[in-house]
Amino acid sequence: MTRSITILGATGSIGRSTSGVIQAHREEFRVEAVVGGRNATALAKIAQDLGAKFAALADEGAGEALSLALSGSGIRGGAGHAAVLEAVDRDADIVLAAISGTAGLAPTHAALKPGRRIALANKESLVCAGGVFMADARRLGVQVMPVDSEHNALDHALAAGSDRDVEKAVITASGGPFRTWTKERIARADAREASAHPVWSMGSKINIDSSTLMNKGLELIEAHHLFDLEPERLDVLVHPEAIVHGLVQWSDGAVTAGLALPDMKVPIANALRNQNRLKMDLPRLDLAAIGRLSFEQPDEGRFPCLSLAKAALRTGGAMPTILNAANEIAVEAFIADAIGFYDISELVERVCSTFFGRNIAAPSTVADALRIDQEARQAARQLLPTLTGTARL
Amino acid sequence: MTRSITILGATGSIGRSTSGVIQAHREEFRVEAVVGGRNATALAKIAQDLGAKFAALADEGAGEALSLALSGSGIRGGAGHAAVLEAVDRDADIVLAAISGTAGLAPTHAALKPGRRIALANKESLVCAGGVFMADARRLGVQVMPVDSEHNALDHALAAGSDRDVEKAVITASGGPFRTWTKERIARADAREASAHPVWSMGSKINIDSSTLMNKGLELIEAHHLFDLEPERLDVLVHPEAIVHGLVQWSDGAVTAGLALPDMKVPIANALRNQNRLKMDLPRLDLAAIGRLSFEQPDEGRFPCLSLAKAALRTGGAMPTILNAANEIAVEAFIADAIGFYDISELVERVCSTFFGRNIAAPSTVADALRIDQEARQAARQLLPTLTGTARL
Repeated sequence: MTRSITILGATGSIGRSTSGVIQAHREEFRVEAVVGGRNATALAKIAQDLGAKFAALADEGAGEALSLALSGSGIRGGAGHAAVLEAVDRDADIVLAAISGTAGLAPTHAALKPGRRIALANKESLVCAGGVFMADARRLGVQVMPVDSEHNALDHALAAGSDRDVEKAVITASGGPFRTWTKERIARADAREASAHPVWSMGSKINIDSSTLMNKGLELIEAHHLFDLEPERLDVLVHPEAIVHGLVQWSDGAVTAGLALPDMKVPIANALRNQNRLKMDLPRLDLAAIGRLSFEQPDEGRFPCLSLAKAALRTGGAMPTILNAANEIAVEAFIADAIGFYDISELVERVCSTFFGRNIAAPSTVADALRIDQEARQAARQLLPTLTGTARL
Repeated sequence: MTRSITILGATGSIGRSTSGVIQAHREEFRVEAVVGGRNATALAKIAQDLGAKFAALADEGAGEALSLALSGSGIRGGAGHAAVLEAVDRDADIVLAAISGTAGLAPTHAALKPGRRIALANKESLVCAGGVFMADARRLGVQVMPVDSEHNALDHALAAGSDRDVEKAVITASGGPFRTWTKERIARADAREASAHPVWSMGSKINIDSSTLMNKGLELIEAHHLFDLEPERLDVLVHPEAIVHGLVQWSDGAVTAGLALPDMKVPIANALRNQNRLKMDLPRLDLAAIGRLSFEQPDEGRFPCLSLAKAALRTGGAMPTILNAANEIAVEAFIADAIGFYDISELVERVCSTFFGRNIAAPSTVADALRIDQEARQAARQLLPTLTGTARL
């Protein structure tokens, strides 16, 4: 049975990998709509390659360029908020939600429609508004499949047993470029050094999050919502080879692990799959050729962002939303060379502390989440000048 | 719901680990009968510890000693073939089948009764008579759960997906004590050196099979029958730490692995489990403390038994039965220091070659399997003098 797909964030890295998977499995999928940010030429090409019926850009000003790029293709185009919502609203069995950042919150939430599957790559839907997002998904009978390799591996490993027998779920971290660096050396690192991710090639913000281990902290928050697991049953393990992505420990001591070569097409294919898994024409994992897999505890002394994220997860309420917003501002400032590496965690900690006593409840709507996000960003911007450079040794 | 268990091979290593699991979970199990070989004192003690209703020894001559050892306990005892069959025949939800060797074939097969679960630790039921054993199990609706850590891990990993999406199933081998030895050095090894298994403490015959990698060859044959997987979809990977026991590669390139500390109680608990897994009070796997897991291809040049077993599996018919019988005789002779290490594979190969042209069909009954087994042992004994010492460099 052919299933219809709409891709949100079609011009990004996950969107492009998804296009690759779909093009290799024309018999399984047809594309309803594709949504991009502002790149009209790129989106028009993807729409034509995939035979989409509708293409939408978030940037209202790019509408004319899109119409031009689509002219003669028979594909209708649109731009701006309404066009994005039209794309989300069109009939599709699966929505691949890969718009990045808080910009993805509203369209991803709008994509929750009865009987649909959401292949979820927008982290913020879970980090900033996980409670309301998952509650609405459950209420509407929407199946949420994580596209992230770690959560995808967990989802897969959890399928080997029963939820009530889960003792612990563990996601792995490559450890980032500073895994073997001393704290003194890390303190002097700049954004270029922090962007040298050892395994995955990613965007700059994500690279910095990977160097601070904040990405794993955010992934713990995501896992909490996706799998309904208490913070105490979630953990992180550093695994530089990035072959084992997630592990589930059962009550009898057995462990199920999800492994794959680091290629986003594998979790994407798994998130899109029908009854049967897709047959992917990719290199196969060869453990003998790899030779060894190594594991170590994450060092929260050198990577305090992980410990802050764990604290935010335990605290609950709006704290994960606040943590995420503060981190966004801190990483921006670090990339702009305005603050040092350990100023990132310092700023996040200060912002979280500021909000701690207020005990703000978890967002009950997406608008609520966006409002808290804005408030926390504001607080972070105000605190920023107080620490510029202070944590740089 | 309490379930009743009968333990065949209660005085052996698997039987004793099973007793430990049952004693830690009195609320889940009650023991119907226990069966041993000839050790009356040991069996009587186990029967009393577990509160069994009936105890049987295979050795007819040990009946009086058993009666004496059980006197006053209220537990009825018996000895000889009929007593063993009575034990097997008594009502029990689960039969843990851990009698070792071909002696286990008939009682394990007799234990196949409608609706039962067999927790299977008798290798020969699958290696020598796998076709008939699994066909009868299916016909009678008997669930066969492997107790072996490798097959248990595979069973568990296979549960994460659908059988038709399985591309390959891989069992791991510690590599045995000769993993890093040169062929010249291995050729001069004696049974004492071959028995120094790096991870598991096992009986002598099993240790030798582990040093030749014949044990993995036999396990491939078992996996073929247990999971209905063609020889081409089965493989072996050397993994000295013995933490990953089995891996399943799916059609999309993802891999599910079953891990556990090397403690037989883990697969036993999994084989005995009810709807829920048992909560086992055992140390948990700590990958960070272990640090690294290593993997390599098995070297069939230094370990020809593995390649012979693979050939027997591909050939099918009675060849696995013949291979197993020849190996038994060869290992006996090696332990008795009558032949060298590479005489084991040499003898197995000669015996298999002798039978190759005869194209003997797979055994259609247990009696048939035992007859072929006897014929192959006879052939092996006849060929033995022709190679005594020849393959010792």
